[in-house]
Amino acid sequence: MDVIVVGAGLAGLATARQLLAAGKSVTLIEAQDRVGGRTDSRAGPGGTWLDVGAQWIGSKHTRMQALAGELGVGTFKTYTDGGIIFNWNGRQHSYRGLIPRINPFALVNFALAQLKLDWMARKVDLAKPWEQSQWDHETFESWIRRHTVGKKAHALFTAYTNAVFATEPKNVSLLHALYYTHSSGGSEWLSKSTGGAQETRFEGGTQAVAKALATALPPGVLRLGLPVRRVQATKDGVAVTAGKELFLAKRLVMAVPPALIPTIDFQPILSPKRAQLLQRMPMGSVIKGQAVYASPFWRGRGLSGQVVSNEGPVKIMFDNSAADGKTGVLTGFFEGEAAIEWSERTDAERQAAFRDCAVRYFGPEAADMIHFEQKVWAADPWARGCYSAHFAPGVWTQFGDVLRRPEGRVHFAGTETAVQFSGYMEGAVRSADRVVAEVIDALD
Amino acid sequence: MDVIVVGAGLAGLATARQLLAAGKSVTLIEAQDRVGGRTDSRAGPGGTWLDVGAQWIGSKHTRMQALAGELGVGTFKTYTDGGIIFNWNGRQHSYRGLIPRINPFALVNFALAQLKLDWMARKVDLAKPWEQSQWDHETFESWIRRHTVGKKAHALFTAYTNAVFATEPKNVSLLHALYYTHSSGGSEWLSKSTGGAQETRFEGGTQAVAKALATALPPGVLRLGLPVRRVQATKDGVAVTAGKELFLAKRLVMAVPPALIPTIDFQPILSPKRAQLLQRMPMGSVIKGQAVYASPFWRGRGLSGQVVSNEGPVKIMFDNSAADGKTGVLTGFFEGEAAIEWSERTDAERQAAFRDCAVRYFGPEAADMIHFEQKVWAADPWARGCYSAHFAPGVWTQFGDVLRRPEGRVHFAGTETAVQFSGYMEGAVRSADRVVAEVIDALD
Repeated sequence: MDVIVVGAGLAGLATARQLLAAGKSVTLIEAQDRVGGRTDSRAGPGGTWLDVGAQWIGSKHTRMQALAGELGVGTFKTYTDGGIIFNWNGRQHSYRGLIPRINPFALVNFALAQLKLDWMARKVDLAKPWEQSQWDHETFESWIRRHTVGKKAHALFTAYTNAVFATEPKNVSLLHALYYTHSSGGSEWLSKSTGGAQETRFEGGTQAVAKALATALPPGVLRLGLPVRRVQATKDGVAVTAGKELFLAKRLVMAVPPALIPTIDFQPILSPKRAQLLQRMPMGSVIKGQAVYASPFWRGRGLSGQVVSNEGPVKIMFDNSAADGKTGVLTGFFEGEAAIEWSERTDAERQAAFRDCAVRYFGPEAADMIHFEQKVWAADPWARGCYSAHFAPGVWTQFGDVLRRPEGRVHFAGTETAVQFSGYMEGAVRSADRVVAEVIDALD
Repeated sequence: MDVIVVGAGLAGLATARQLLAAGKSVTLIEAQDRVGGRTDSRAGPGGTWLDVGAQWIGSKHTRMQALAGELGVGTFKTYTDGGIIFNWNGRQHSYRGLIPRINPFALVNFALAQLKLDWMARKVDLAKPWEQSQWDHETFESWIRRHTVGKKAHALFTAYTNAVFATEPKNVSLLHALYYTHSSGGSEWLSKSTGGAQETRFEGGTQAVAKALATALPPGVLRLGLPVRRVQATKDGVAVTAGKELFLAKRLVMAVPPALIPTIDFQPILSPKRAQLLQRMPMGSVIKGQAVYASPFWRGRGLSGQVVSNEGPVKIMFDNSAADGKTGVLTGFFEGEAAIEWSERTDAERQAAFRDCAVRYFGPEAADMIHFEQKVWAADPWARGCYSAHFAPGVWTQFGDVLRRPEGRVHFAGTETAVQFSGYMEGAVRSADRVVAEVIDALD
């Protein structure tokens, strides 16, 4: 065997596919009984499907688009016709386009600070973010406080951080906010549906991409239900103990969330610097809910289904109905601190909180759910958080240079290792491109 | 069996001792073939011993003093006669007492800021540090920059953070700096040898305390060399798989560094909030070196052997000779960023760097080491860093309330869970007091 790949999320599946295409022999080992990692599409009532994990791609996500095309997975546009509900301290209105009708001073303040943020972000060399150490000593929150006047502009940056990073601005380094914003296409593109990162969805659910990748693998390559417990590397090769089986190969690619790597017993042990980096890459906090209705009733009222609110716990919602628009689906996110707090409650309590939020935004009709689906990502033992890992102050500059560095026969893929679109499905696939080149080079 | 305790560092040993004294049956399981955790005393030349881990206690460390007394482990005072070398940008002088001869403006600036720091620190309720959320949105570095003018006062705070937290001021929340400073006795007490936290050492090395605790256990209680891989809790009890053995008990106490807990397969899995807390408790970065000389040659020159420097990689040194003062020992620390950088080098390179620093401070005689001992704590698979875990901005307020909270049959001890003297040996022993009360209450 040439290569063992651990983790059958998009990064691992794409890595296996490309290595096989290059004529290498591959075993892809997955702990769970399913593929797809942080994509997870579940059957809903009446033939619907509900994405409780990653779901959107945008125009800049060219590798994901190409992959869906190759695999024959259909796509369709996110429903965005109609007004977006803007809810602030119990008062709400709907707006169209990019700009809610709030205090023009706050809007200008936000827009100017956002321009500065993007200007700084573009100065970050994505391959070497640690070189901009002048931005790694403080939190994004500290920067926001210096650059905003009043609560509304501040709240818009908080909403941006919650939605994009699944954490709070105080949890990330300014440098990480800049790196991630630049890596992922700029703050405006990141925030938009039409013409942005939330533009396009997958027919049958996002997990269809991973499932199609798995189906296209030759028989025997993919081994499900085998948690990797031990990795032993010698001068001759690498031995991987997964479940009760032992796999041998020349090279190993780890394509799992960074926080899971320390759960594996590596012999020899991982280097001190990598071990400490992995202690410093916590996963974001998000709970995703999906409410199914008999029809997308908001559409008839001229609403897009999208919500931006400063009142929680569900502050962001989207129309998540299928392309035919028959059954109505609203998706909503508990993010950052709200996700942490509500991870301690029951499914029923979270569903009630989601319903109360939906009623606040869309009126009493929103109480009549015919189905509700939810996922607490921090409770998933094979993710322990979503959307991705983030970096607190100091971590990029002190540890970042080992993130993509192979360690002996062990290579590292996954969206967190991507140079571009880190944290997105696109980043997962691009990390596969990089690691495949690296492994083929090492094998030759 | 009533209780299984995992981890035979000071917290686990003290927990086992007290539970046995209360008439409970206990098994203490340790992964390594030695006890003592983050204390590690090695034999040096000519009957000397060298502490490559924790080594000092001070007057406020009453539980450690009492324990040493009970166990018959002798103590002696840290050698502090003579001047302290203060090295700044290649220029150095020696001073006595607390205050180096530097720019009085910088000293006053530092002293006033330090007063403010301690004043704020005393406002932190050690049992509930998360209540002071107004101090958890920024890094300690941000606070230092606002409160210091010029490089020297800033550098003194950096030196404080390096020496006390084994990390940089940008890596910790202001709230964590305040909590830890208050928990551990105040910034001045923490920084001092005589009359402070570095006042007293142990005859034969600090690990003698752990060894004496182990020796005092009834036969069969302590099981060495058994890494715990799985914990299964049911309504009837808890089953612990360690090495190839299975242990059953009513209650379990985890007394290991927090970053190691996720390496164990818990069934049911740990709660989402605890799992995410454990992703956010990275260990500090420190490499400790010990240079042995034929005699403590610096003493004859009126020097105490202590160094405070802004030039690295070894910026802090102490006389670490045994009480008889025959053989000379200098200990020095690579801390924070210096430890991360030098963890990537060889033993020989680190020894040479230590020697160069010692020569810079003490002259050519310091090159004539007869022995050198070192430990990269991040490379120790059962610590993965030292002295203890630290908290980045947001973590205390978002996750802190689960730190000491039991989870079903599983309880948590260890210095990081201490209310007072968190991060110190004293905190480890005090965490045992708390967890023992908790477990006895749960057993009754």
